[in-house]
Amino acid sequence: MTEPAYDLIIRGGRIATATDVFEADVAVSGETIAAIGRGLVTGKREIDARGKLVLPGGVDAHAHIEQLSAAGIMNADTFESATVSAAFGGTTTVIPFAAQHVGMNLRQVVEDYHALAKKGAVIDYAFHMIIVDPTKETLEEHVPALVKQGHASIKIFMTYDRLKIDDEPLLDILAAARESGALLCAHAENHGIIAWMVKRLLARGYTQPKYHAISHARISEAEAFNRLIGMAALIDQPIMIFHVSTAEGAKVIRDARGQGLKVFAETCPQYLFLTADDLDKPGADGAKWMCSPPPRRVSDQEALWQALALGDLQTVSSDHAPYRFDETGKLRAGPNPNFKQVANGLPGLQVRLPLLFDAMVSKGRLGLEKFVELTATAPAKIYNLHPRKGSIAVGADADIAIWDPAREVILNDEMMHDLAGYTPFAGRKLRGWPVTVLSRGRMIVADGKRSAEAGSGRFLPRNGGDAA
Amino acid sequence: MTEPAYDLIIRGGRIATATDVFEADVAVSGETIAAIGRGLVTGKREIDARGKLVLPGGVDAHAHIEQLSAAGIMNADTFESATVSAAFGGTTTVIPFAAQHVGMNLRQVVEDYHALAKKGAVIDYAFHMIIVDPTKETLEEHVPALVKQGHASIKIFMTYDRLKIDDEPLLDILAAARESGALLCAHAENHGIIAWMVKRLLARGYTQPKYHAISHARISEAEAFNRLIGMAALIDQPIMIFHVSTAEGAKVIRDARGQGLKVFAETCPQYLFLTADDLDKPGADGAKWMCSPPPRRVSDQEALWQALALGDLQTVSSDHAPYRFDETGKLRAGPNPNFKQVANGLPGLQVRLPLLFDAMVSKGRLGLEKFVELTATAPAKIYNLHPRKGSIAVGADADIAIWDPAREVILNDEMMHDLAGYTPFAGRKLRGWPVTVLSRGRMIVADGKRSAEAGSGRFLPRNGGDAA
Amino acid sequence: MTEPAYDLIIRGGRIATATDVFEADVAVSGETIAAIGRGLVTGKREIDARGKLVLPGGVDAHAHIEQLSAAGIMNADTFESATVSAAFGGTTTVIPFAAQHVGMNLRQVVEDYHALAKKGAVIDYAFHMIIVDPTKETLEEHVPALVKQGHASIKIFMTYDRLKIDDEPLLDILAAARESGALLCAHAENHGIIAWMVKRLLARGYTQPKYHAISHARISEAEAFNRLIGMAALIDQPIMIFHVSTAEGAKVIRDARGQGLKVFAETCPQYLFLTADDLDKPGADGAKWMCSPPPRRVSDQEALWQALALGDLQTVSSDHAPYRFDETGKLRAGPNPNFKQVANGLPGLQVRLPLLFDAMVSKGRLGLEKFVELTATAPAKIYNLHPRKGSIAVGADADIAIWDPAREVILNDEMMHDLAGYTPFAGRKLRGWPVTVLSRGRMIVADGKRSAEAGSGRFLPRNGGDAA
Amino acid sequence: MTEPAYDLIIRGGRIATATDVFEADVAVSGETIAAIGRGLVTGKREIDARGKLVLPGGVDAHAHIEQLSAAGIMNADTFESATVSAAFGGTTTVIPFAAQHVGMNLRQVVEDYHALAKKGAVIDYAFHMIIVDPTKETLEEHVPALVKQGHASIKIFMTYDRLKIDDEPLLDILAAARESGALLCAHAENHGIIAWMVKRLLARGYTQPKYHAISHARISEAEAFNRLIGMAALIDQPIMIFHVSTAEGAKVIRDARGQGLKVFAETCPQYLFLTADDLDKPGADGAKWMCSPPPRRVSDQEALWQALALGDLQTVSSDHAPYRFDETGKLRAGPNPNFKQVANGLPGLQVRLPLLFDAMVSKGRLGLEKFVELTATAPAKIYNLHPRKGSIAVGADADIAIWDPAREVILNDEMMHDLAGYTPFAGRKLRGWPVTVLSRGRMIVADGKRSAEAGSGRFLPRNGGDAA
Ligand SMILES: [Zn+2]
Ligand SMILES: [Zn+2]
Ligand SMILES: [Zn+2]
Ligand SMILES: [Zn+2]
Ligand SMILES: [Zn+2]
Ligand SMILES: [Zn+2]
Ligand SMILES: [Zn+2]
Ligand SMILES: [Zn+2]
Repeated sequence: MTEPAYDLIIRGGRIATATDVFEADVAVSGETIAAIGRGLVTGKREIDARGKLVLPGGVDAHAHIEQLSAAGIMNADTFESATVSAAFGGTTTVIPFAAQHVGMNLRQVVEDYHALAKKGAVIDYAFHMIIVDPTKETLEEHVPALVKQGHASIKIFMTYDRLKIDDEPLLDILAAARESGALLCAHAENHGIIAWMVKRLLARGYTQPKYHAISHARISEAEAFNRLIGMAALIDQPIMIFHVSTAEGAKVIRDARGQGLKVFAETCPQYLFLTADDLDKPGADGAKWMCSPPPRRVSDQEALWQALALGDLQTVSSDHAPYRFDETGKLRAGPNPNFKQVANGLPGLQVRLPLLFDAMVSKGRLGLEKFVELTATAPAKIYNLHPRKGSIAVGADADIAIWDPAREVILNDEMMHDLAGYTPFAGRKLRGWPVTVLSRGRMIVADGKRSAEAGSGRFLPRNGGDAA
Repeated sequence: MTEPAYDLIIRGGRIATATDVFEADVAVSGETIAAIGRGLVTGKREIDARGKLVLPGGVDAHAHIEQLSAAGIMNADTFESATVSAAFGGTTTVIPFAAQHVGMNLRQVVEDYHALAKKGAVIDYAFHMIIVDPTKETLEEHVPALVKQGHASIKIFMTYDRLKIDDEPLLDILAAARESGALLCAHAENHGIIAWMVKRLLARGYTQPKYHAISHARISEAEAFNRLIGMAALIDQPIMIFHVSTAEGAKVIRDARGQGLKVFAETCPQYLFLTADDLDKPGADGAKWMCSPPPRRVSDQEALWQALALGDLQTVSSDHAPYRFDETGKLRAGPNPNFKQVANGLPGLQVRLPLLFDAMVSKGRLGLEKFVELTATAPAKIYNLHPRKGSIAVGADADIAIWDPAREVILNDEMMHDLAGYTPFAGRKLRGWPVTVLSRGRMIVADGKRSAEAGSGRFLPRNGGDAA
Repeated sequence: MTEPAYDLIIRGGRIATATDVFEADVAVSGETIAAIGRGLVTGKREIDARGKLVLPGGVDAHAHIEQLSAAGIMNADTFESATVSAAFGGTTTVIPFAAQHVGMNLRQVVEDYHALAKKGAVIDYAFHMIIVDPTKETLEEHVPALVKQGHASIKIFMTYDRLKIDDEPLLDILAAARESGALLCAHAENHGIIAWMVKRLLARGYTQPKYHAISHARISEAEAFNRLIGMAALIDQPIMIFHVSTAEGAKVIRDARGQGLKVFAETCPQYLFLTADDLDKPGADGAKWMCSPPPRRVSDQEALWQALALGDLQTVSSDHAPYRFDETGKLRAGPNPNFKQVANGLPGLQVRLPLLFDAMVSKGRLGLEKFVELTATAPAKIYNLHPRKGSIAVGADADIAIWDPAREVILNDEMMHDLAGYTPFAGRKLRGWPVTVLSRGRMIVADGKRSAEAGSGRFLPRNGGDAA
Repeated sequence: MTEPAYDLIIRGGRIATATDVFEADVAVSGETIAAIGRGLVTGKREIDARGKLVLPGGVDAHAHIEQLSAAGIMNADTFESATVSAAFGGTTTVIPFAAQHVGMNLRQVVEDYHALAKKGAVIDYAFHMIIVDPTKETLEEHVPALVKQGHASIKIFMTYDRLKIDDEPLLDILAAARESGALLCAHAENHGIIAWMVKRLLARGYTQPKYHAISHARISEAEAFNRLIGMAALIDQPIMIFHVSTAEGAKVIRDARGQGLKVFAETCPQYLFLTADDLDKPGADGAKWMCSPPPRRVSDQEALWQALALGDLQTVSSDHAPYRFDETGKLRAGPNPNFKQVANGLPGLQVRLPLLFDAMVSKGRLGLEKFVELTATAPAKIYNLHPRKGSIAVGADADIAIWDPAREVILNDEMMHDLAGYTPFAGRKLRGWPVTVLSRGRMIVADGKRSAEAGSGRFLPRNGGDAA
């Protein structure tokens, strides 16, 4: 009896999961992984992965794509450009937002984003629903229905003038999330503190981008975390705290988890690799490094790495939010905007994994299994995309990134595939690069060249799972 | 050479300060203490205090007198009735509020309360200014001027629909307090949480007074403390947290003080001697025990005693807020109100000291010096009324309460001198009672009988002092 | 081209690693796993695992086998009986001790235990070296040499009259461990406190087994943890704290890890499933449940589960230490011993996994992946036996336990394969049982029957790895 | 009727207690304070104190006087020289030690020290009994009898070769203290850690005084505190932790007190005003600054001040332990001793108060009332010498120090009245100095000149009081 030929064999690479690292072939049949073994025979196609690492494609659970900001600025990417850039960075699953604004019907919002994604996405995707207007209809009708349709996470903002949810409606949303079995994700910063700082700084003429970092006083993060956690505990609703940036914030989370509360948290490369000093550039140049919360201090970077090591933070997302450094984006208010007029956000879908690979694998901080866990397995589990996504296992989708651990790359703006036009990490030399990327068995990046069609990505319906 | 006769000698009592307890005579000349010694000669008048305790008159730093609530209810007392009741309870200094409502001119508000106090008060007084409408004029003109005139503390509410100050304006007030050298006092509870709980409870038909206690979820206290402390730390402004009711709240304060932050805090007899169960009475009866925050659990009482022992809380005030149990007060919305329709507050000026004396001195918890410290010396120091008030020392105002430590009293409604018409502590048997009370050397309660004229109390201008 | 036949295929089971759970066949070639896939063809032998779970064999990192106690009692098991019982419980790797006593040459000790294991063991094994007599020769010559030979962990006792290491020599041992790259494991209890309690209890006639639990005052654990951690931090040497039993102990560990210290810790089934009440039996019967530290309270059980969930504790070992309930073991001092005369220890190699499987998988606490992690993967990693042991991955040793998740078993003494003659968990009904067990591809338990030869287990040399 | 003439009137000074500061005369009759008032008439003698501060004489609760060290070195002072130096520094009560060595009968030890003190002391005194040899007779017979005779505190050492008490006997002593109602004071450092550090340092040739500071690794303090507190909590016995030197140590105490444990603690001027750098002098010179624990860092100084402010530490003692910088003392082992051969200890009875006055009153840190509390009132209360000692109150002993707050003094060796021959604080310029000192109404220092007879001090019997 002969073994039926597999559709594809990735031959001789070094495979890593969050638990194991070993040498083997990976065989793909159709869209999924059929076998992992040594000396597997007969692939209709084969990829030689000797000397390479064969990793699960990254799962980026926090990215703003083709999204209209509250200030009315459309971000720079389309689903096509954003997901292509993700693919080039080794990421094969993304969870962008279906972003309501005040007055919008949430069902319609979700439908609209589905249409955009369906047209453009080259990798698979799910959605977080951003709720800005928690009307009775939204919470009692739309949310339960949409969660049932597979949109099992809600995101809210505790700051931003046109987005922020106050404590009382936030409790309504937490209760609705609990009722429908959705995870609640939050941009948690204290709005009043930031608004007050901004007011004081601008009134005194401190307008440059670097003052953005000062305006987000450190306490505005830890305070909001503490408040959100208290409310979530009251409702007994799990939460995911987005983009932790400070040591104090990480400590609030550690304490809450130590009390047994269901608190998850992420950080982002900008908080691990940048500091507030990066915003201190001549003129408006610092705007390229402006995001919210802002990068902080070297000591915060250390605290965040420690929190990742201890499991206090479980994942690293990009918070991709691309704005061009021109009048369509960062400089919309002119060439010399005050910091409050500058759109917040950095492009990051493409560089997230290479930056982390370099730090964790090439430089050895926490190691390869932890790299896989933080960037793929853990987000897939928290957002209930596992076992389909996030690991290399028989039966899982063949979402695979083949990394050349020896390839050295100096980041520059030109190699970015998103439409932001720049990367805040330009000039950094990284070791380790994803050379070939598969999504459900289809090659989408092959030896550094795009080979994916717009619209070939698929929606991933999911319910809240264990985390919710 | 003969000693000039003293105006008054209190003979042979046992004197206590926050530090010392000893037997001696106290001699008064004019309004102040002239000498303390054994065998002092020649008082024009003498009081035999043998077998009695001679203590500094109490300082009650938190009392609502002749104050209009946000709901438009005038509380039950006049300055005369309130201060007479205070005097009967051994208290000789009180700090009520000059309470702004939205749209009111703060200068005028302060003037109005001065007029009321001047007419009625039988003991000396200062004012906290309640700010509800922090306009530019209020903060930049009125506050500095009023602080200079001796009103060196500001109170704000973080909850109550028509009173609450949101985070951004709260920072403005903190900054204004810092600028003018005033202490910032706060009723710190999370408004959104309470509002949400109320909404849910009423919607489900949970309307009785006991649900008031449930509506103020425990976390609403610790959360607000944490937030307020964070903002005060940002501004580097000292704060006084009013009426701590929970163990968690006390812990937040201990942690903050351990970090070197300038945080003061008080609790009240209702949190040391009542629990939420006291609100669980038939019909509307529980309304008599309704105050905000509500009494909590026996374990909270223990935690608060511990916090007092450790200095985490520095003083015990009454939060006197009297409403009659009739249609002018608690039952304004009818005989069967829902808990949200009931005015919050308890009468307490008269019973504060007897309740604490019984617990601390007669039953021995923490002892006599600590009783004096918590009820007189510490508030006098924090609010910068010391050395004039709060201790028995040469040169200090002769504000003295002579206690019979053996007198047993069963509290009842009839013996109360305020106009609330009831005491929530009726039926309790206490050991120890103030029998004679002096204010600036004048007898205001003599052997259990009033001997003070309305309007004989005086305003005590003060600046912020060390605490601010 | 045909695939070469695998030696063995385990067909159609549900495979679990610490990360993934999926259905697939497992193919074994020689001693290792050759492939994992669906529809693998041609095994020389096949096992039908449909409806079963295919898990990595357990790694039990703490077991006393054929070991002479300080009191001169040989424990009940031989390497054969102990490892057979382990195999029947789904465990395929064990780390017992090579136990020095005062005056013994550590090299000789290790050699002796090797001889015993080589003769009897049916599963693979490594050794911890117990150091009781840290002479210069031991620390400077024997330890480095023995670590180089693959004995990369040292165990010390902080209590027990003839075993305990005082602080100063403990620092010598920590320094020697650091120098040679070994992990330091510790039985950490405060000797003086326990000795004092024992003295007081016996002097007052409290002699029954239940007083054993009282004699190990709770503080004796947290104190010793704190002290050990302090000393290890001074030397910058990683440590493994054995058998955590109290909530306070777990908290000390959490705090230390939060500070970035390299502290690992285990607990045991007796602390998760028994309490001190289990020792309260008539006469000497309670002796069957006597171990050190003793089982504690239900609240401690909860705290330990929480610590496992949070990663503060990383593994669950058996601390197998079998003594018969007769004059050769527990009753060596006669039928009515005082608690101090009773040998401490419980048999546990066989029941560790079934007890945990029932709780974690069948009853759902923490789940299947975490079960695999705590009982196999994590100990294999900490003790540097991974990737050979502790997971199901291509290239790993084919140490596999096939569990019937539906099999219900009521534990009884007769089904135990060790020589203790009883199990402290008799009478418990468990759901889930390992029915077939493989060690390096050899069937050692087949459908509930032993099929392993004495001496077929192999020594696993290892260096300290990442943990050390 | 005329007032009988007082024996002495201190006229017109500014009096301070731990609570109050005010201007008044102090009248003394016989040995005690008879009156405090303005315009008191007719003193047989008068002291003009206008422009001066009239403070309670200091209480120094930790001083080694005429004491034989474990190494057999008699310290430099006699009771006469030590107490004269104390008096010159404004201290009027001292608690030295009656120090047992192994084999000594504790009753005899106490008797011997009584004889020495009776002969020499010029100020009043009590004794702590140092227990080094806790025999059954000592604990069951001598301790109860001696406590009844007024020696209500026991001191133990957790380190020093010939002094240290191990955990088990320490529990015996704690239990004996509890039984007899004595306070337990401790020199708490981990012996093993220090011994190990010493061994390593000397072996590597690090012999200079500065290595003494390194040998007392920071963790050796916090560890010992934690262990001692745990054991005391087990016995429910109050403890006083001597000479806290590190931030970590202070934190352990704060945490324990926060849990409601009865833990008291002191620090000393050397930990508030010196650092380890002071030991880094050429040759053996650093020996002059050697004490145990050693001075630490500037950040520790800050932490200790904070702990004093918060009440975590309640008092500042001198730990006076004088050794001459010659062959009778520090250089007993020759002119070039290794640090282990140098006697530990600093002279401090005279400078304690001036150093603290300068920092707290002249420079304003914590203020005058807190100065009085930390240096006089609090130790008097903790050791149950209050109300006789520690405050200025009617009926109290007339132990009074009159300070000139404007007097500037540069400390030098010659002005020291003890026999150490040097002060480690030479060269410091202080503002504020005690010019006249009274003990029980007798002038003992008058305008900077000694006027006290040897042997005029008296023993102060005391029971354990509230603290014990
Ligand atoms: Zn955000
Ligand atoms: Zn975002
Ligand atoms: Zn209030
Ligand atoms: Zn109030
Ligand atoms: Zn053990
Ligand atoms: Zn063991
Ligand atoms: Zn000492
Ligand atoms: Zn000493």
